[in-house]
Amino acid sequence: MKKIVIKFGGTSVGSIEKIKKVADIIKKRFDEGNQIIVVVSAMSGVTNELKEKSNLISKNFDNKELDVLLSSGEQVSSSLLAGAIIDLGLNARSWLGWQIPIITNDNHTSSQILKIKTEEILNFISNGAIAVISGFQGITFGNRITTLGRGGSDLSAVAIAKYFQADTCEIYTDVDGVLTTDPFINKKAKKIDKISYEEMLEMASLGAKVMQPSAVQAAMIDDILIHVRSAFSEKTGTKVISESDINYKKAVTGIAYSKNNAKVSLVGVVDKPGVAADVFEPIGKNNINVDMVIQNTSLDGKTANITFTIKQEDLKKTLSILEKNKEKINYKKIIHDGKLAKVSIVGAGMITSPGVTHTMFRSLANEKINILAISTSEIKISVLIEEDLTQRAVKVLHEAFELN
Amino acid sequence: MKKIVIKFGGTSVGSIEKIKKVADIIKKRFDEGNQIIVVVSAMSGVTNELKEKSNLISKNFDNKELDVLLSSGEQVSSSLLAGAIIDLGLNARSWLGWQIPIITNDNHTSSQILKIKTEEILNFISNGAIAVISGFQGITFGNRITTLGRGGSDLSAVAIAKYFQADTCEIYTDVDGVLTTDPFINKKAKKIDKISYEEMLEMASLGAKVMQPSAVQAAMIDDILIHVRSAFSEKTGTKVISESDINYKKAVTGIAYSKNNAKVSLVGVVDKPGVAADVFEPIGKNNINVDMVIQNTSLDGKTANITFTIKQEDLKKTLSILEKNKEKINYKKIIHDGKLAKVSIVGAGMITSPGVTHTMFRSLANEKINILAISTSEIKISVLIEEDLTQRAVKVLHEAFELN
Repeated sequence: MKKIVIKFGGTSVGSIEKIKKVADIIKKRFDEGNQIIVVVSAMSGVTNELKEKSNLISKNFDNKELDVLLSSGEQVSSSLLAGAIIDLGLNARSWLGWQIPIITNDNHTSSQILKIKTEEILNFISNGAIAVISGFQGITFGNRITTLGRGGSDLSAVAIAKYFQADTCEIYTDVDGVLTTDPFINKKAKKIDKISYEEMLEMASLGAKVMQPSAVQAAMIDDILIHVRSAFSEKTGTKVISESDINYKKAVTGIAYSKNNAKVSLVGVVDKPGVAADVFEPIGKNNINVDMVIQNTSLDGKTANITFTIKQEDLKKTLSILEKNKEKINYKKIIHDGKLAKVSIVGAGMITSPGVTHTMFRSLANEKINILAISTSEIKISVLIEEDLTQRAVKVLHEAFELN
Repeated sequence: MKKIVIKFGGTSVGSIEKIKKVADIIKKRFDEGNQIIVVVSAMSGVTNELKEKSNLISKNFDNKELDVLLSSGEQVSSSLLAGAIIDLGLNARSWLGWQIPIITNDNHTSSQILKIKTEEILNFISNGAIAVISGFQGITFGNRITTLGRGGSDLSAVAIAKYFQADTCEIYTDVDGVLTTDPFINKKAKKIDKISYEEMLEMASLGAKVMQPSAVQAAMIDDILIHVRSAFSEKTGTKVISESDINYKKAVTGIAYSKNNAKVSLVGVVDKPGVAADVFEPIGKNNINVDMVIQNTSLDGKTANITFTIKQEDLKKTLSILEKNKEKINYKKIIHDGKLAKVSIVGAGMITSPGVTHTMFRSLANEKINILAISTSEIKISVLIEEDLTQRAVKVLHEAFELN
C-alpha cells in the first residue's frame, strides 16, 4: 500500500462541478489501494478577491489580519471537497493548518513551515479514511494564523509529503505536465516525461507556472518524488526526480521565456571593489528584483559597463534611484531598453553536450534575432532579445534542440 | 471605565464601506473610554452563498464540514474589521472561535456554548486594545469547528457578555431598535425605549427580527443588559431589561404578526388519553414545526376537534402524514386552510390590565375581521385571521392600544 500526497490547485477546484470531479479522482486513487492525503488550494480567483477586499480597507492592511482573511479561501475549498468525498460514501474530513497543526514561523504572509504534527492524520488514514488538508496555511507557536505566500499550497504539499513520509507527491494541475515550452506560443510543445529538480527550478522560475519554485527547491532538498499531472485527463504527467535518475538523451530539456523585461546599462562605471554593491544596494532596498547581471571586463582597467535586467514595471523607479545615486556610484551614462524578453534553454544534459551554446546562438542568428545580453548557469543559457521576437526565438530553438 | 460587548450583524458589515463605518463607530465608543469587545457576523448574504455551495455538492452535506465551511464567513468579516480598526491607528486583533476558545458541545450546525476562556482577551483589552471576535462559531473539545445555528452571532454576543462580565451588550442592527410593529405594514410604528426579556422573546419569535430569540432567552437567564440600536444613526435604541425595572404605562407593548400560516383541523377525534400524542408524534418526526394548538372541550364526551397551525409550505406534507395515520388517530375528517396570518398583541403590562382581550376582539370585529383561532399566554394574545387582512388588523390594534 502506497501513501500518497495529492495536491489540487485553484483551477482544479475552481467550481462546484470541478470539486466533484476532483472527489472522483480521489476516490479512484483510493480504490487503487492508496493511503491518501489531499492538499487543496483556494478556489481560483478567491485569494485575489480577498486580497482586493483588504486593499479597499487599507493599502497597508495589517499582515496578521491578512493571513486570517486569506486562509479562509482554503477553508472553503477543503470543507467543500471533504463534503464531496463523504458524499461518495467514503470517510473523509478536512484539516485546517491550525488543526494539524502545521507550525510556521511568524513571518506573516510568507511564513516558513517549521514542523508538522502527523499522529492524528496518520491514524485517520490508516483506518481507511481520506484526509483533506488546507494548503497555504499554518499557525505560529503564538496561535496566530499564517500563510506561506503565493503558490504556498505547493510548499504545503511538499512539506506534508516529507513529514508524513509519503511515497510520492502528486501535483494535479490544469495542464498535462511540464512542457518543453509554452504551448500558447509554440504548438509543437511536448510533455516532458522526466525532469530533474534543477531543470524544473529553472523552468518554473522562467514561467512554466505548473509548480512554485520554492516548493521544487524544498522537494529537491528532501528528495521528495514529485509527479505533475492533469486533473482533467488520465495521462501520466511529468515526474520530477533526481538528476542521477535521468538518462539524458537530449542536451536540452525545455525552452523557457519571460516577457516584460527591461535592461539598464551603466556605462563608464569606475572599476573598483564595492561598485556593484553601490549599484544594487539602493535598488534592492526599494524591493526591485534584479534578474540578470552582466559586468564586462574592464578594457582600460579603469571603467567598466554594468548591465542588468529588471521587470518593465520597475524601470522608471530604478532609473530614478540611479539618478539619485549618480555621484556615489560614479558612472558616465545610463542606457536603457524597456521591451525585452529573456529566452532560455534549460537542460541538465547540456553539461555533457559540447556545442549547445554554439547551436543556440547560430539558430538565433539565422533568424536575424539579435542577442542583447547573455547569462549562463550549469544547466541553462539565457539570452535577452527584443520582446517582439520571443515567439520566433522559442520556435527556432525548440526545433534546433530536437524538441518538436 | 465600562466594559462593553458590541455586536454587528451581517447588514452592518455588508460591504467594505459599511465595515469602515463600523470601525468608526468602534473608535468612537473606544474614545468615550470604554473597554471594547466586538462580536461580528458574516457579511450579509455570505452564509447563504456558502450554504448554497454545500447544497450543490450534496443535499446531505456533512454537518461537520458544513461548520468548517460556514465559519469562514465570520473569519472574513472579523479580519477585515480588525484590519479597518488598526487602519484608524488603534490596536486591535481578530479572534476566531477556536483561538479564544469558545468551547461548545458537538451538536454541529446548532451547537451550545459550554465555556469561554477569557484570560488572553481580558489582558488584551485592559491594555487599551480592541478585541474583534468572530460570532456564530466555536470549537468542540475534540478540536472541530462548530456553529451555533442561524443568528448565532447574537448568542455569541450574549455568552461573551456573560463570561467577560460586561456591563452591557449592544446589538447594532439596521433598524433604530425594537418597534411597536412592522413599519412596512404600519407607518405609525414607533420605537420602544424599554422592553422586558419576555416581551422581546414574544416579539422576536413573532417576527420582529432584530434579535435571535434564543439569544434573548440566554440574556434573560443571566440578566445581561441588552441594548438594540442602529449602526447607521446615533439614536438610543431599545433597552432589553428585567420586567421589574419597567414601569408599565401601557397594557400592550407591541403588535407582532407572521404570515404564511396554515390551519389544520381534525374533526371528530375520539376523546381519549394519548390522542394528541398520536396526532403530533408523526408530524414532529417529520421535522414539521407546529405553532398554535387548540383543542376544544368535548361536548358529547366522546369526540373532540383538534386544530393546529403550521407553516404553509408544510401543509401538503402534513396532510399526507395525517392521511397515512388516519386509522391510528381515528378522526372523522380533516378541514384545512392555507392562507392565514397570526397577529399578536404583546405586553407584560396586560397582566394587570383587565379588558385587553375584550378590546382586541372588539377592535377586530369592528373591522369585520373574523377570528379563526385564539391562543394566549401570560403576556401575549394571538389570533389567527385571513392573511389578506393582516395589515388592517395590525393597524387597528396599533391604534386601539394607543401605540400610534
